[in-house]
Amino acid sequence: MKHSALLTDYYQLSMAYGYWQRGMHNQNAVFHLFFRRNPTQGDYVIASGLESIIEFLNQFQFTDDDINYIKSLTNPIFSDDFLTYLKTLRFTGDIDAVPEGSVVFPNEPLLRIKAPLLLCQLLETPLINLMNFSSTVATLASRIRTIVSDDSLFEFGLRRAQGPNGGLTASRAAYAGGFDATSNMLAGKYFGIPVVGTMSHAWVMAFEDELTAFEEYARLLPENVILLVDTYDSRTGVDHAIAVGQRLKKQARKLNGIRLDSGELLLLSQMAREKLNEAGFFDTKIYVSGDLTEKRILDLKSAGAPIDGWGLGTHVSTAYEQPALDMVYKLGAIQKNSAWEYKLKRSDNNRKTSDPGILQVKRFYIEKKWMRDIIYQCDYGISSSEINSAEKSQDLLIPIFKNGKLIYALPSLIEMRNYCLEHVKQFNASKGDCYSVLRDQHLLKLKEKLLDEMQ
Amino acid sequence: MKHSALLTDYYQLSMAYGYWQRGMHNQNAVFHLFFRRNPTQGDYVIASGLESIIEFLNQFQFTDDDINYIKSLTNPIFSDDFLTYLKTLRFTGDIDAVPEGSVVFPNEPLLRIKAPLLLCQLLETPLINLMNFSSTVATLASRIRTIVSDDSLFEFGLRRAQGPNGGLTASRAAYAGGFDATSNMLAGKYFGIPVVGTMSHAWVMAFEDELTAFEEYARLLPENVILLVDTYDSRTGVDHAIAVGQRLKKQARKLNGIRLDSGELLLLSQMAREKLNEAGFFDTKIYVSGDLTEKRILDLKSAGAPIDGWGLGTHVSTAYEQPALDMVYKLGAIQKNSAWEYKLKRSDNNRKTSDPGILQVKRFYIEKKWMRDIIYQCDYGISSSEINSAEKSQDLLIPIFKNGKLIYALPSLIEMRNYCLEHVKQFNASKGDCYSVLRDQHLLKLKEKLLDEMQ
Repeated sequence: MKHSALLTDYYQLSMAYGYWQRGMHNQNAVFHLFFRRNPTQGDYVIASGLESIIEFLNQFQFTDDDINYIKSLTNPIFSDDFLTYLKTLRFTGDIDAVPEGSVVFPNEPLLRIKAPLLLCQLLETPLINLMNFSSTVATLASRIRTIVSDDSLFEFGLRRAQGPNGGLTASRAAYAGGFDATSNMLAGKYFGIPVVGTMSHAWVMAFEDELTAFEEYARLLPENVILLVDTYDSRTGVDHAIAVGQRLKKQARKLNGIRLDSGELLLLSQMAREKLNEAGFFDTKIYVSGDLTEKRILDLKSAGAPIDGWGLGTHVSTAYEQPALDMVYKLGAIQKNSAWEYKLKRSDNNRKTSDPGILQVKRFYIEKKWMRDIIYQCDYGISSSEINSAEKSQDLLIPIFKNGKLIYALPSLIEMRNYCLEHVKQFNASKGDCYSVLRDQHLLKLKEKLLDEMQ
Repeated sequence: MKHSALLTDYYQLSMAYGYWQRGMHNQNAVFHLFFRRNPTQGDYVIASGLESIIEFLNQFQFTDDDINYIKSLTNPIFSDDFLTYLKTLRFTGDIDAVPEGSVVFPNEPLLRIKAPLLLCQLLETPLINLMNFSSTVATLASRIRTIVSDDSLFEFGLRRAQGPNGGLTASRAAYAGGFDATSNMLAGKYFGIPVVGTMSHAWVMAFEDELTAFEEYARLLPENVILLVDTYDSRTGVDHAIAVGQRLKKQARKLNGIRLDSGELLLLSQMAREKLNEAGFFDTKIYVSGDLTEKRILDLKSAGAPIDGWGLGTHVSTAYEQPALDMVYKLGAIQKNSAWEYKLKRSDNNRKTSDPGILQVKRFYIEKKWMRDIIYQCDYGISSSEINSAEKSQDLLIPIFKNGKLIYALPSLIEMRNYCLEHVKQFNASKGDCYSVLRDQHLLKLKEKLLDEMQ
C-alpha cells in the first residue's frame, strides 16, 4: 500500500514547527503505544498492524505536493526553512514492538519508539491508526475462533466495512486472528488469503425458479456446489438442494454444502441436517451466515446446532460491538544533555496516569504455562524480588528498527496466524480466573516520585 | 483515490462466470441500494458516498494483474475466454441516485442501477461499501450539528479510525454532514477541508513546566493561541493560560482559546469561563474534547455548559455507537426478451421482503415544508389518488450515469455541505412526530401479486 506522511493530525505539525524553531526537534524521546481496556469484556488483545507500520515507516517522507499543501496553510504560517527541513525528514529512530499475533494486556506497551521528538510527534497518529483497528479485528476474530474450535470461519464483511481499505485491513486481521478465508478478492490478491464464495439470492432470483437456479449452478460451477437455500423458503430450499444432490450423485459428483442466511438458525440447521441425513447426504456441510455475532455463535454452539461453518460480515469487518480500541501514545522519557528525564501524564483518574521511563514487558512461564507479565523500566531491570528461579521469562518487545533501519525479518501472514493460534491456546490454558499483569517495584517507585514532584 | 475492480466478493465473480457461460450476462437488470433502519434511534439518514462511486465506476476495469490473480484460483476454474471477456469489461450502465447530502429514509432507494446482470452483480459489493460508511458518518455528523447549532465542530478521529482510508472517508463525511474542520492533514489536502489543531499533552510534558510550555507556544506559534490546560490539573492549567494571556494583552495580542480534554466538562468549563471572565478574557473561547459522544454533548448543551467548540474523535470517525448502516442491494427487475420481469426477495420477516420493479421516490412539499415521501414503480407512475393539487413534488433519484457515461455535474464538497445543512433544516422543521414514507398503491399491488405467485 502507498502511504503518505500527511497521514497525521494538524497539531503534530504545529508542535513540530514549535520544536524546530526552539531547536528541540532532535532531542531524543521515548513514547509508548498501549491500550487501557480489553474490548467487550474480553480478557486479552491480539496485537496486529506491525506490518503496515513497517511499510509506513519505510515510505515515510513528505512529497513536493505535501510540502506545497503545508505551505498553503496559514495558521501557523510555516517558514520556508522549516519546509525545506521537512522535505529531508526520514524515519531515523528505533522501534521495539511485540510481534503480530501476540496476546497482550492493558497498559503493556505494544510498541516503543525512540526517535527525535519531532518525528515521534508526527508519528503518533499513523502508529495508532495502523495498530488500533487491525488489533481490534484480530482480537475479535481470535475470540470467535476459540468459540467454534475447528469449524470453518469465513469473513464476508467487505460491503459494510469502513471503506475499501477498512475492509482490506479487516480481512487480513480476521485471517491473522484465526479465520480460514475471506470473500474479499482484493485481500486475496494482496495478502494471499484464501477466498471463498458461491452464490447470492440474486442468482436464485435471476432464474425462473429455485430448482433451475440450483441445477444450473451445479452444472456451470461444478467445483464447489454450495447452494443458498433461503431465497424463498429454507425448507423448500433444502428439498431443492437435495434434489440436485441426488442428480449429482448419479454423476459421481457431490453436493458440497448448503448455506442458510436468515431465520432461526438453530431450528433451520437441525431441519436441514435431518433432511440431508435422511437422504444420505451425511457429508454435505451446513454453512450459516446473516448478521452473525460472537454472541449468536456462542448460543448456537452451546445449543449444539449442527453447523459446520460460519460466515461473518459486518460484526467482524467493522468490529461492530466495539469498533475501536482505546489505544494511546504517551511520552515516557526525553533526553536532555544526553541524560534521560522520565515523564508521565498525570490524571485525576489514577488508572489513566501513564507509566514513566523506557518500558519493557517480561512474561514469566513454566513450560507452556504463563505465570504473569511484569512491566518494567529498561534502565533499572526487573527487581530481584520478582524473580522465581523455577520460571523462565521472555521480553515481549523485540527490536524492529534500529536507527531507522529495519532489522526484523517479518514473518509471513500464515506464520503470524499460526503464532497467534498457538499463543491464544497457551493463554487460554494458563489464564485461570484472572491473569496478572504487574508493575515492577522500581517502576512503581519512579512513578510515585514523579507524582510527588508534581504536587 | 485509485480503485480496483477486485474490490468485490468472490461470489460475485463465481456468479458472473455462471451468467456468462449461460449467456445471461448481458440481460439487463435493475438493482436498488437502500437501508432498512435509521441508525441509533435517529429519524433520518444523510446519503453520502456518491462521489467515490462515480470515481470507482469511471475507473472500473480489471488490470492484467487482477486477471492473473483470478486465473490462479481453482474453485471455480475460470476459462480463458471468460478472462478475456473480463479484461474488456467497463461500466456501461445507468445510475440514478439521490444527491450527496440528501435526507433519506428506510426502504427508499438511494441508488438505482440498470446494467447488464453480470456488471450489476460485480458492483454490489463496492457500491454498498462506498455508500454505507460515508452515509453512516454524515448522518451522525448532521445530528451533532443540529444539537450544537452554531458552535464550532471539529473532527479529530484519524488515529482511531478504521485504517487510513477509513479516517479519510470519515473526515470528508463529517464535514459534508456539517462539521467545520478536521485535524486530518490528508483530508485537508485531498478534499480542501479546513484543518485545525494546536498542541497535545506531549508538548506540555516536553518542557520543564506547564507555564513555560504555554509561553513558548504563544511565542513560537502566535497565529492561533489555544492552550491545552489539563495535562497536570485543569485549574492550574487555566491559571497558567490566563498568565500567558495577560502577557499577550500587553503585546496587543490575543489568547484565542483554551482546551479541556478530560474530567467533568460541565464543572470545568464553568470554572474556566468564570476565571477567564474575571481576568477580562471574555473573548477567549473554551473548547472541549476527550471521548465526546453525541449523548454527552446533548447533556452538556442541556446543562448550559459555557462551551464554544467541540472536538470529536473516535465517536465520529468510527461511528462508534453504530459503525455501519444495514444497506442492502436487491434485484428489482430483469429483462427477458426485451420485457421487464419484476422480482422481489421474500422473507419470513415481512419487513425484509424487498420492493419489486424499477423504483423512484417522490417527495411532496408545500413551500419548504415536506409532507411525505412516496416510493413508486417508474413504469406505473404515482396513483392519482396519492396526488394533492396543493402540493408540489420532486423525484429524489436523479440521473448520474447514462450508458456508462457520467451525465451529472458533481457539486463541490462545500456545496454538498450547504445542501445537507439546508435539507436537514427543512426536515427538522417539517417532521412533526413522524414523517411518513409510503408505498404507492400500484407498487403494493405488484408486490402482493408476486408474493401470491410464489405460494
